[in-house]
Amino acid sequence: MAKKQKVEAITPRDEDFARWYTDVISKTEMVDYSPVKGFMVIRPYGYAIWENIQSEYDKKFKETGHKNMYFPLLIPESLLQKEAEHVEGFAPEVAWVTHGGGKELGERLAVRPTSETIICSMYSKWLNTYRQLPFLYNQWCSVVRWEKTTRPFLRTSEFLWQEGHTLHETAEEAQEETMQMLGIYRDVAEQYMAIPMVVGRKSEKERFAGAAETYTMEALMHDGQALQSGTSHNLGQHFTKAFEITYLDRGNNQAFPYHTSWGVSTRLIGALIMVHGDDNGLVLPPKIAPTQLVIIPVAQHKEGVLDKAWEIKNKLAEKFKVEIDDQDGYSPGWKFNQWEMKGVPIRLEIGPRDIESNQCVLARRDNGEKIQVSLDDLDVTVEKLLDEIQNNLFQKALERREQKTSIAINLEEFKENLAANPGFIKAMWCGDRACEDKIKEETGATLRCIPFEQEIIGDGSCICCSKKAEDMAYFARAY
Amino acid sequence: MAKKQKVEAITPRDEDFARWYTDVISKTEMVDYSPVKGFMVIRPYGYAIWENIQSEYDKKFKETGHKNMYFPLLIPESLLQKEAEHVEGFAPEVAWVTHGGGKELGERLAVRPTSETIICSMYSKWLNTYRQLPFLYNQWCSVVRWEKTTRPFLRTSEFLWQEGHTLHETAEEAQEETMQMLGIYRDVAEQYMAIPMVVGRKSEKERFAGAAETYTMEALMHDGQALQSGTSHNLGQHFTKAFEITYLDRGNNQAFPYHTSWGVSTRLIGALIMVHGDDNGLVLPPKIAPTQLVIIPVAQHKEGVLDKAWEIKNKLAEKFKVEIDDQDGYSPGWKFNQWEMKGVPIRLEIGPRDIESNQCVLARRDNGEKIQVSLDDLDVTVEKLLDEIQNNLFQKALERREQKTSIAINLEEFKENLAANPGFIKAMWCGDRACEDKIKEETGATLRCIPFEQEIIGDGSCICCSKKAEDMAYFARAY
Ligand SMILES: [Zn+2]
Ligand SMILES: [Zn+2]
Repeated sequence: MAKKQKVEAITPRDEDFARWYTDVISKTEMVDYSPVKGFMVIRPYGYAIWENIQSEYDKKFKETGHKNMYFPLLIPESLLQKEAEHVEGFAPEVAWVTHGGGKELGERLAVRPTSETIICSMYSKWLNTYRQLPFLYNQWCSVVRWEKTTRPFLRTSEFLWQEGHTLHETAEEAQEETMQMLGIYRDVAEQYMAIPMVVGRKSEKERFAGAAETYTMEALMHDGQALQSGTSHNLGQHFTKAFEITYLDRGNNQAFPYHTSWGVSTRLIGALIMVHGDDNGLVLPPKIAPTQLVIIPVAQHKEGVLDKAWEIKNKLAEKFKVEIDDQDGYSPGWKFNQWEMKGVPIRLEIGPRDIESNQCVLARRDNGEKIQVSLDDLDVTVEKLLDEIQNNLFQKALERREQKTSIAINLEEFKENLAANPGFIKAMWCGDRACEDKIKEETGATLRCIPFEQEIIGDGSCICCSKKAEDMAYFARAY
Repeated sequence: MAKKQKVEAITPRDEDFARWYTDVISKTEMVDYSPVKGFMVIRPYGYAIWENIQSEYDKKFKETGHKNMYFPLLIPESLLQKEAEHVEGFAPEVAWVTHGGGKELGERLAVRPTSETIICSMYSKWLNTYRQLPFLYNQWCSVVRWEKTTRPFLRTSEFLWQEGHTLHETAEEAQEETMQMLGIYRDVAEQYMAIPMVVGRKSEKERFAGAAETYTMEALMHDGQALQSGTSHNLGQHFTKAFEITYLDRGNNQAFPYHTSWGVSTRLIGALIMVHGDDNGLVLPPKIAPTQLVIIPVAQHKEGVLDKAWEIKNKLAEKFKVEIDDQDGYSPGWKFNQWEMKGVPIRLEIGPRDIESNQCVLARRDNGEKIQVSLDDLDVTVEKLLDEIQNNLFQKALERREQKTSIAINLEEFKENLAANPGFIKAMWCGDRACEDKIKEETGATLRCIPFEQEIIGDGSCICCSKKAEDMAYFARAY
């Protein structure tokens, strides 16, 4: 009975994917809507996932020599205006502080939408000689970009992110850094979050405002829509010239450094939900789950059950993130559903008869399998199972993405594919903005990226204008 | 020569303490002034210290069952106004967002000065039954409080902090939580930052706006001024009533929960600098230092020196935070001064002759001692030395505080002490606001706290009005 109620509470994915998403994020208490429209409250369960994502990235940033710092929340309007493309891109989304300390301010202050401008203004003060380069710095913070239509984690007027900002002596080093960070983004996404990524270059249209090149990783959600999940920008010398960042180079001349910036955000949590989740709720990869295993005692009022459950909990907690649900007044079935909804990778059931036979039951969240295992060497069994679940989730996601990826050699086929099997469409593109715009207008799909792994589709001519095309690109409708 | 230049660059503490502070924080590259007046940029060296402080506190918060979450940056004006004392306390310092997404907003939004109001508005939605209590949540974020006179870390218009917000069934539990968190604040400050704290209760005048009781830890800086370093508030039911947070209690009645909040901030970095620093710059306690030991090769161009230095570095890096400074073009003396200024606890010098005799030199930052030690079991030697330094810094700070703490039985003596030996003054206080105000007016000293460890000074009568006094209080001029 309880089971049924719980399952009915979440709208099935294929009935209404948007409602399924909203159901999952609110019923699992990951997130809530704040009193200010478009702003979200990240609740402890959602935030614990963010902390895990953050910690993996932060470790890798530091291993590659980056240090964290913190720049002010508020940026003077005049600074924002120094790089022309940049201000044009961001001005419409800015929240403005006009009053402080009981007075109207002389100059409006932008709540940071991103920090290139204020960081460059300080870098120009800090950098003197090539001996100081590279600058390899990052900050974890929140940014505000006013949005009309919002959805928690995916698009909100405020979100949490990190923004790396580096300076280099040569264009080559800046390009290497840009690619290195995209690589780190992909590694953590694939190896920890079990989300397969397509990586490549953005078209000029989709570039970051002020960038020479933007690189991206794109994931495919269960409903066939793409999600831009992390971007790494080679900013060339656009900002360093606009902000007059110069240094004495090895030849004793004044030079402008080369510049990169890169970011991932709480959006990744949205990807996690929409790639792995199912009709029973969240499904979390073990490496990123706040709880990897939950112990649910069965007939817990019977003598010895709770003692044994706690004994197992204390033992497993040495190696894994373990919870025990020994609340009174809820049936095991109700608890099963709760923790299933929360996406905990393994449920451990233990009752009087299990104890008698020195066994317990392990139930996998990813495929529903239940196995009876010995209590001896339970930690080894659990470790192996967590690995299997981690790998299985990635493989399943990869297969799903492949199933939802098709090729098209003309716009008819493009539209047919998009209707019959929504997902990525691989097609040749001549590089013209006009074709990119036309494809979007006719199909609703945008150019997600020009992947590093290229291939030639059909006879190699542009899907839109039939001119000879240089590049194959991924297209999709996107969040 | 280089040595002299470096030392001259920092204003001596006793000549001008404020300038000494400014010199230290800028020359060590901990912090810089941002383009917006009153806002600071926390540079990597300063931020690394914050990360270490943060990580110790976060660990202890989690060990005591608290979870992190994230609430929006912007708070509607109407929410801020729901608790009368609170809005009165904070409104003058608020930064207001009036425009977003190219439009004027219907209601002004406050950049969070603290989050009680918005958090309570959500707690009222989340809490239904006593089964959910306690709520033990915390957030790490930045807050904005417009300030006229600012000094990096000590008082800035934006700072980084954590704010814990908890709900409890009973007044007793809320009081226990308030005291537990103050205890954690003190433990990390004393055991990791080596800063001795006086802990106690604030007077009504100095209480947090809306609190039933505010508890504080107060540290004494080198110049004899006090610094409020962390506060823990028992908020009673003020906010839970104002925000109509109710739940079904064990007796099946609607009840208001009891509420606490508590915070420490980047201010602690200011305390660290002003408690331990000396005329050569920063002095960092080993447990909080971003670098615990720096290796400086001497005659590094000579064969084998760099190899040996790196061998030592790689070995020690398994256990400690170690840097090696093998830059070309700088003399060892110049490097010594640089790292001394940065407050690194141990400097390891190694040159050709040391290598021959299987030795190296360890120089302590805290007392300048240099010892020659064997390269065998170097890790054991270093570990012992770091412990010694950690303890010595705390002991020295404690002794200094005791020297700068005096008692007074009348206002004359109070003023004399404050002039002759600025620091804490312990004196009896009747509890009247009028006396507190008069003491401040006549001496510039404020009531820092009524310590938990009480004693009777003189005949136990109020230092100001001579009425019988219940409490002994600590007074000091303060940052
Ligand atoms: Zn074309
Ligand atoms: Zn009195």
